[in-house]
Order: sequence, then C-alpha cells, then structure tokens
Amino acid sequence: MLRLYDYPDSGNAYKIRLLLSQLGQPFERVEIDIREGITRRPEFLAKNANHRIPLVEWPDGRRLAESNAILFHLAEGTPFLPDDAWERAETMQWMFFEQYSHEPFIAVVRAWHHNDQIEENRTAVPAKMEGGHHALDVMDQHLKTRRFFAGDGYSIADIALYAYTHVADEGGFDLAGYPAVGAWLERVAGQPGHARITDQVGTPVSWP
Amino acid sequence: MLRLYDYPDSGNAYKIRLLLSQLGQPFERVEIDIREGITRRPEFLAKNANHRIPLVEWPDGRRLAESNAILFHLAEGTPFLPDDAWERAETMQWMFFEQYSHEPFIAVVRAWHHNDQIEENRTAVPAKMEGGHHALDVMDQHLKTRRFFAGDGYSIADIALYAYTHVADEGGFDLAGYPAVGAWLERVAGQPGHARITDQVGTPVSWP
Repeated sequence: MLRLYDYPDSGNAYKIRLLLSQLGQPFERVEIDIREGITRRPEFLAKNANHRIPLVEWPDGRRLAESNAILFHLAEGTPFLPDDAWERAETMQWMFFEQYSHEPFIAVVRAWHHNDQIEENRTAVPAKMEGGHHALDVMDQHLKTRRFFAGDGYSIADIALYAYTHVADEGGFDLAGYPAVGAWLERVAGQPGHARITDQVGTPVSWP
Repeated sequence: MLRLYDYPDSGNAYKIRLLLSQLGQPFERVEIDIREGITRRPEFLAKNANHRIPLVEWPDGRRLAESNAILFHLAEGTPFLPDDAWERAETMQWMFFEQYSHEPFIAVVRAWHHNDQIEENRTAVPAKMEGGHHALDVMDQHLKTRRFFAGDGYSIADIALYAYTHVADEGGFDLAGYPAVGAWLERVAGQPGHARITDQVGTPVSWP
C-alpha cells in the first residue's frame, strides 16, 4: 500500500490526502511532527534529502517528494488531470503559481500564527501579507469568468490552490474581498469525496 | 510564430530560450526590462495578472506563464519530456524543487548582486545563502549516482535546474564544493543545440 509521510497541519500534505480520498485509494499515513526536526534526522533524510513532507513511498521502494509532483503523478490517467494538452498546460501553470506566488506567503504567515512565531518575524509580515493578497487578487480575477482553474472541470490545480486558500483566514487574510474565490471554495468543498484538512483519512502507521 | 516575453538576465526566461533553441523552433522575443516596472503596467497585466516574465503567447492569443509550465507544454511529445510515467513524475519533482527550494535562494541573491541591492538586503543574505547551499547539496547528492535529474537522459528537469545553477557564482556561490554538480553542468552544456544565457536567440520584436 502507498505510504504518505504526513503532517496534519500542512496544506501541502493535505493536498495528497484530499486527492487520495477522492480517488478512493487506500493509503498508510505516517504522522511526522515537523516542528520537532524529525525530517532532518538521518532516517528521514535517507528518504528525502530535501527534508520535507509530504513524501510518498510505494511498496517497491520508489519515493516521490514535492506535493504538486505527487498530485501530478497520482492524477495521471484520472479525471483530476485533464487529457487535453492545453488544459494540462494550464494545470501546470496554476500549480507552479501556487508554489511560487501563493504558498510562500499565505502558508508561511499561517504557520507563523500556528507556531507562535509572528513576533519574531514581525518585520517580514507586511511583505508576506502583501504577497498573499496579490495571489488572492490574481485568483479572484481568473475566477470571475471561470468555474475552476484549468479547463472546465475540477482538477489538481484546484486541489493545489484550495489547500492553503481555504485556511488563509488562519494567517489573517480576510477572504471577504475576494467573492469569486469564496464561490470557488464552495464549489471545491462540494466535490464528490471531499475530505477536510482535519479529517482523519488513511491508516495511521508509526515510524520508524 | 510563438512570442516570448523575455528579460535577458532572467534564468527563468533563459530556460525557454534554451529549450526553443534545442527544439529548433523559431520564436519572437520581446525584451522587457523588469527593473523598470513594465510588467506592472496595464498593457502587460492584461497579458499576465501575476506581472512576471517569462510569458509565452501564441498567434491565436493563448498565453502561458510560469517558466516550468511553459517547459512542460513545449516539451510534451518531444525527447525533452520522458514518456515513462515514473520518469515524468521525477521530472515534475525536480522542477517543483527548483521553483521552491532553489530559485528563491540562488536566483534571488544573484539578482541582488546584479542590481546593486546586496546592502539593502544585508540581513536576509545569510539565510538565502544557506538555502542555496542546501539546494546545491541535494543536487550534488543526487548527481553522484545519476547523469541527469530524471530518468537516464537530458530533460526539462535539467534545463530548469541548469538555468540558475550555472550562474550561481554570480550570487557568490562557490561550486567547487559540488563536484557532481560541476560535471553535470558540463554534460548539459555539451548537449546538441545548447544556447548560452547570453546568446542572442529568437527574433527581436518591439512592444507594445
């Protein structure tokens, strides 16, 4: 069975839990407390030298890191990744947008709030908030004329962007100013097989 | 003819120039001086609300942003993107690694040097250097047993990582400590149709 190295509060890890739930694919879940430095210990570094979760491991020993690469691989050949070449290109565009222009702002400020690190990062917060609001502006503009991010249907581009957008308020972002984003969040949450970030999905496994 | 909105010093834009050169695909090149705020003017924002180059535009009006999404789309169906599902997954993993764990460190410090902004970012430089060295460590470890990043051959994963790695010294990174990276840089530069970051490729077009 596929094994996910997971951290419950991570939106990047939630992306994988959400897609696997919607695919109806059973998986093992190893909970790693990233705040305790476990991903920097030798036994984890042997699995991912880049010391990050999520990490997915197959029974034959193959491993894949990077949340959006994992989404891409798991979604290939399913309705969650379009067949059409142009829609695939759009999917990739929005997933790279998410990792470069969205997550480093919205996810990081949320993590600072959750881990009581706002004060120590006080001087960095305004630029992070500005970057996050810019990402939300870009999304809202796109969603004024589109139901989902790539093509006509729900895809891994939506999963990637939903993960941290739907909890952006936990980082102090007020989504009231982004009505098209708000309507899209509801469409995503209404998809068949949707799982919430707090849902206990997967079979817990202890490690190492 | 395909049109690239370009900035000569950008490694992200260079990725597209390099792949198009190796594909033997003619293209128009619109040079944008990103230092002068042109990407934040209405006529550019109408093309990419996320105010970034590279941006590729097709004659029918379709546009694609995000350097690695553009690489993915242009390489689909060519030897630069593997057919094998697992090798494709590895390709995506390294391209997301590049945008999240490599470019924000190595490219950013280089840009600060090029634009005389090191002093104003003095307090941020140590963490940027540490992140860049970590990315180089991860790459060097991988390349100790592999000739290229994904599968057995040269792919867009190599193009994505080559773009800023081969000029990392311009940001103060000493590549002497990464011998496997050094050997890989030579393999990449030796590929058929290679173009350098300073090569004038594409047909210059003025805009708007």
